[in-house]
Amino acid sequence: MSTTPPRYAAADLLAFAQRLLHAAGMPDDKAQAVAGILVEGDLMGHTTHGLQLLGSYLREIEAGTMNVQGGPEVVSDAPAALTWDGRRLPGPWLVLQALEAAAERARRMGTGTVVIRRSHHIASLASFHKRATDQGLLLLLACSDPNSASVAPFGGLDPVFTPNPLSAGIPAPGLPVVMDISTSATTNGLTNRLHAEGGKLPAPWVIDGHGQPSDDPAVLFQEPKGTILPLGGLDSGHKGYGLSLLVEALTGGLSGHGRADPKEGWGATVFLQVMDPAAFAGLEAFQRQTGEVVRRCHASRAAREGRAVRLPGEKGFQLAEAQRREGVTLHAGIMDALAGWAKKLDVALPAGR
Amino acid sequence: MSTTPPRYAAADLLAFAQRLLHAAGMPDDKAQAVAGILVEGDLMGHTTHGLQLLGSYLREIEAGTMNVQGGPEVVSDAPAALTWDGRRLPGPWLVLQALEAAAERARRMGTGTVVIRRSHHIASLASFHKRATDQGLLLLLACSDPNSASVAPFGGLDPVFTPNPLSAGIPAPGLPVVMDISTSATTNGLTNRLHAEGGKLPAPWVIDGHGQPSDDPAVLFQEPKGTILPLGGLDSGHKGYGLSLLVEALTGGLSGHGRADPKEGWGATVFLQVMDPAAFAGLEAFQRQTGEVVRRCHASRAAREGRAVRLPGEKGFQLAEAQRREGVTLHAGIMDALAGWAKKLDVALPAGR
Repeated sequence: MSTTPPRYAAADLLAFAQRLLHAAGMPDDKAQAVAGILVEGDLMGHTTHGLQLLGSYLREIEAGTMNVQGGPEVVSDAPAALTWDGRRLPGPWLVLQALEAAAERARRMGTGTVVIRRSHHIASLASFHKRATDQGLLLLLACSDPNSASVAPFGGLDPVFTPNPLSAGIPAPGLPVVMDISTSATTNGLTNRLHAEGGKLPAPWVIDGHGQPSDDPAVLFQEPKGTILPLGGLDSGHKGYGLSLLVEALTGGLSGHGRADPKEGWGATVFLQVMDPAAFAGLEAFQRQTGEVVRRCHASRAAREGRAVRLPGEKGFQLAEAQRREGVTLHAGIMDALAGWAKKLDVALPAGR
Repeated sequence: MSTTPPRYAAADLLAFAQRLLHAAGMPDDKAQAVAGILVEGDLMGHTTHGLQLLGSYLREIEAGTMNVQGGPEVVSDAPAALTWDGRRLPGPWLVLQALEAAAERARRMGTGTVVIRRSHHIASLASFHKRATDQGLLLLLACSDPNSASVAPFGGLDPVFTPNPLSAGIPAPGLPVVMDISTSATTNGLTNRLHAEGGKLPAPWVIDGHGQPSDDPAVLFQEPKGTILPLGGLDSGHKGYGLSLLVEALTGGLSGHGRADPKEGWGATVFLQVMDPAAFAGLEAFQRQTGEVVRRCHASRAAREGRAVRLPGEKGFQLAEAQRREGVTLHAGIMDALAGWAKKLDVALPAGR
């Protein structure tokens, strides 16, 4: 018995997610922001960071560990730098608020930076960038979660860091360049999924509790527990380690909240910076250079026949465009998991095509 | 016949380098800045980016391809963002000028960013950070050189990037954390040196001209020419590729000068940003968090017995302290190469201990 997985209209998924969040108690503006960022994740193919997260978000609202009322508290306010306490409000909404504030400051000051302590989870970093690059702005976005640790410092056995992602949206003449990387060799999302499926990693991205490199995510779940290696792995892990420390400084350090404080549950500490090319050498000059670099990358002969060189983000934007046109395919199990919430909150399921 | 290599007093090396640069035509303030940054490189053990560079700098002055008179031209000036044309002036001096300007703005605005097009070479990025962290400031520093390319985009055969280093100085309660990485798997400096010595790389960090991974730097010198892989190598090179593109955007993009322009010879495009923790949640809160992260890294059990976990920059600062006390050992050949310049410019050689 084989069935074709249903496709959903992006607008239907958006309305569905928004209604669920609203029915769970989230005000409309926040529900719209969170639903939009989650569906953006699925559109671009980041299936672990789209509607897959919605059930967990609803559970957090129900448990009172995600706040839904009010806004962030201002910790400090300098002309080009804002520090907020996110009061455990929905992360995607907080990040969009921060993006707006940072963009406004970047236009006046050249750059605008917002750091947020005590945000709730912020979903896929890649989902935010086009909203900046569409305005001709460069966006840097990074986060850490001081409430957990799965990545050890290079040469160590004890976890200190989360995968501490670092991402950037770069305006370019065609599609923007969107890079979004963890500063660890792999992520919790991938190791959890592969472990559940009994799969192996493509390379030795983890070490076991005795320091032996491995491609088996199971070592993260056995005692003594293993850890994820920093980006660069066995021979260059000092580089990922350095980047992880940088992300910690930009998030926990600048926001003044992190691993020195008691744990509060699933959350995020966020660093967001907007730079306005118009305040530097001008947007046209910026695009001229990034356009040339993009052109040279595309023109590079492929190292393996038939596998043309792509720019980071390109595949996601192309997939999103196709899925907007032809409907969105959700990863297995996502709609099943949400069906329970739909019933409980009395929200109709979206019709599959 | 075995001889102990001579040790030099750091102050003697500084005075020697300064006199050579001055005798070659560089005004005193610039000679002092350049000599200071070069000797700092040797003190910290970055032997390819210390006085090893001085001969090349003197040659560039002689050839008129490094300017020594006047200052940078202001391309644009926003409250938190400055863009300079470096007029091919000495890089270390330009970066120190930029650091001063960025720090002053960071104190008023929260952050201060300076990008410099058409700088000459800026030596070791790691040499600048302590001057910021000693003031309680966080420094980001990155550069690219649009005049050359040795790193291909991930999956490609044709070089587009330089190793595009990215570095950060992070104030911490004890020593600052200084991370300084190339966004490529290895550097031109290391591959050149190993190729000359007939050595191999520790891992497949390069690919040959047909796309075959290799640990042999010779493939970079054979036709068809190979390239350096991005950081992350074979299994994660898309991450280093993304970081290389980010550094290109921050340098060539924001400064409006780069790979879309005619080549001008050895140079650098520079991105420098200072963030003042006092303008965010406060320096004390910043140090509390970074101190905790540093403590946890140091406390992590070692993956290999006898190899304690270190923080980036730690080894360099400890070596610098020892060499300040006991004298500086220069890498083989450096003083021999400078002896010719000393004779030509009528400057006395420093006395070895």
